Amino acid sequence: MSLEFKIEKNLNEELGRVGVLTTPHGIIQTPAFVTVGTKATVKALTPELVKDLGSQVVLANTYHLYLQPGDNLVKEAGGLHKFMNWDGPTMTDSGGFQVFSLGEAFGDSVSKIAKKTEDESLRSSASNKIEGNSGRLMDIDDGGVNFRSHIDGSKHRFTPEKSIEIQHNIGADMIFAFDECTSPNASYGYQKEALDRTHRWAERSLSQHKKLGVEEQSLFGIVQGGRFEDLRKYSAQVISQMDFDGFGIGGSFEKEDMYTAVGWVNQILPKEKPRHLLGIGEPEDLFGGIQNGIDLFDCVSPTRMGRNGTLHTEDGRININNSKFQNDFGPIDKECECYVCKNYSRAYLSHLFRAKEMLAGTLASIHNLYFITHLVDKIRQSILDESFFEFKEEFLKRYYKY
Amino acid sequence: MSLEFKIEKNLNEELGRVGVLTTPHGIIQTPAFVTVGTKATVKALTPELVKDLGSQVVLANTYHLYLQPGDNLVKEAGGLHKFMNWDGPTMTDSGGFQVFSLGEAFGDSVSKIAKKTEDESLRSSASNKIEGNSGRLMDIDDGGVNFRSHIDGSKHRFTPEKSIEIQHNIGADMIFAFDECTSPNASYGYQKEALDRTHRWAERSLSQHKKLGVEEQSLFGIVQGGRFEDLRKYSAQVISQMDFDGFGIGGSFEKEDMYTAVGWVNQILPKEKPRHLLGIGEPEDLFGGIQNGIDLFDCVSPTRMGRNGTLHTEDGRININNSKFQNDFGPIDKECECYVCKNYSRAYLSHLFRAKEMLAGTLASIHNLYFITHLVDKIRQSILDESFFEFKEEFLKRYYKY
Repeated sequence: MSLEFKIEKNLNEELGRVGVLTTPHGIIQTPAFVTVGTKATVKALTPELVKDLGSQVVLANTYHLYLQPGDNLVKEAGGLHKFMNWDGPTMTDSGGFQVFSLGEAFGDSVSKIAKKTEDESLRSSASNKIEGNSGRLMDIDDGGVNFRSHIDGSKHRFTPEKSIEIQHNIGADMIFAFDECTSPNASYGYQKEALDRTHRWAERSLSQHKKLGVEEQSLFGIVQGGRFEDLRKYSAQVISQMDFDGFGIGGSFEKEDMYTAVGWVNQILPKEKPRHLLGIGEPEDLFGGIQNGIDLFDCVSPTRMGRNGTLHTEDGRININNSKFQNDFGPIDKECECYVCKNYSRAYLSHLFRAKEMLAGTLASIHNLYFITHLVDKIRQSILDESFFEFKEEFLKRYYKY
Repeated sequence: MSLEFKIEKNLNEELGRVGVLTTPHGIIQTPAFVTVGTKATVKALTPELVKDLGSQVVLANTYHLYLQPGDNLVKEAGGLHKFMNWDGPTMTDSGGFQVFSLGEAFGDSVSKIAKKTEDESLRSSASNKIEGNSGRLMDIDDGGVNFRSHIDGSKHRFTPEKSIEIQHNIGADMIFAFDECTSPNASYGYQKEALDRTHRWAERSLSQHKKLGVEEQSLFGIVQGGRFEDLRKYSAQVISQMDFDGFGIGGSFEKEDMYTAVGWVNQILPKEKPRHLLGIGEPEDLFGGIQNGIDLFDCVSPTRMGRNGTLHTEDGRININNSKFQNDFGPIDKECECYVCKNYSRAYLSHLFRAKEMLAGTLASIHNLYFITHLVDKIRQSILDESFFEFKEEFLKRYYKY
């Protein structure tokens, strides 16, 4: 067991907790926001900038690194840490989400948050061979998934064993079991079928992980089940009985149901192991997730939004491309202590975006990552200070202008 | 006088020298390579990365900042240093080169190095209204130049007075007189006419600079004259008699004539003032320029080449996009001490370029700027050590495989 998790304080009458997660590459104070470095680079940032903004841990994507530059190459380079020059804790996802989303498994492609649809029977359990938006085919069978690369259309197959093998080659501290990520619009019947497959795949992921025997890496199981209470609880029960080092909560949620679903699951998952809510990172979701027992979050939104010029402030988001910021000589957020807010004006950011300068994406990413990373740190502190609910109300009221 | 220049050592029987240039924002050990930050940002780099790689001074472009975000906005922001968060020495060029190149003054547009043409009478002195490649018109008259913005086609006029006013608004430590930058293919007659105009503009630039009376800024005059010995010497004589704080050597050169032309000029320019060779930065040109008395160079090539994947090594240039580097786990240059060579492999750079990651341009720019900046530093040291000629021979033989 290469992972140690200690809970330091619980949130009164709630599932939330503050902890310390010790990995072979250093400690993570939880709850923590995990910075996404999809292709073994946090877009537009050097690892030193990532560290300096307060990131404790970086998550890379198995699907992307498998396709480019290849997991064997990453292994030959000495593993993910050395390859990308990040000596802190790392994670890789299982590749499941990308296979099902970039591979366009469903006509309505997989995403983390979706609106409710009337057509809950859109996907029947009989249909496992599904044509995506692009007309490409992806086959799911009990063995694994055949898919085409989004880069060059080449054919590939992921199985639980293959995903774990790839993740061992990449060599992150924390890795994930291979799961089927369903559409939020999938029917109950299809969700159940996919869930049972995910559970079988979890067993196979665990077996493969033990067989490969790399003790420095920890394996997280993934709970699925869509937005069905019985399926979520069933999945949490099945997965918690397996010998995982931690747990991921995956799949798509209705926005309004997410905290409820997370709560169902975390009431069942063993308290002593860390829990990661996959692909979620909006401010209100961070509060909701933490209150309901989440220890780790990852999301591309701070960097992706940043590159488009959307910036977090305590008073909500601003779009720096708006002409009113061209001669605004104040910082992005006057209460923010980040490198960007201490050294640059909105006018300068505005100039960089208009001039399409690369530094625009760099500075915007630093600010947004700092904002979200430190928001989670502040939530952590508020649990320690027993001021979580006051902080939550104050922050959300101001940010979302409720 | 806000600029102090002390010569510490001369290169035996040559014009070359080692000096220290003191500006209001710090000292520059000369000879020095000036990093180009065209639009008030060194492309793909934070100012800290620029400083950490060893850059002593940054040059921004008057033409670009005038058009976007506007020199008045830079002034309102507190000037260039504060706007871009660079507290070291700065320069701005006069905008002349960009007006004549981006404004497409000539059918064969202005560039720093050009091949000889048979048609030396291509441009007659009678023709001052010239249609560029794009069909846009640019008028040169004795008062100034009318041109269209390369961004939106809007009409603008630069005069010597306007250029100086803009440069005062931007607020760099060292600024340049407004000059006409001619095509290397311009006839003797046209060069002479343009040169006399440049000299009149130099006087007007100086008057305007004194009138505006900002003592923190130093003004450099520019020597022109193309590749004609008599014109270059004449220009050097005329410009040295004016009360400039330093000198720029501008215009286009035949590659093979450059050192000779620089030598003609520097034999005449007063020894006690700094000399800047504008827009030149290839390794052999750095040796040739320094040997012939140049103290400062600026060039976009390290960053521009870097963003395209062309990287300097002691053994010449490599193109990191070449497939042979995909599994090359050594550094870009095993003798290089830069941040990139100490922390990343060619394989990682290769991956970043193939994946079109922004960090590719950042790391390549850091390496190339370090290489060129430190090459100039090493040349400086070789003059102090009295090993200049050995170092030059050894370096050029290895780099160019002579």
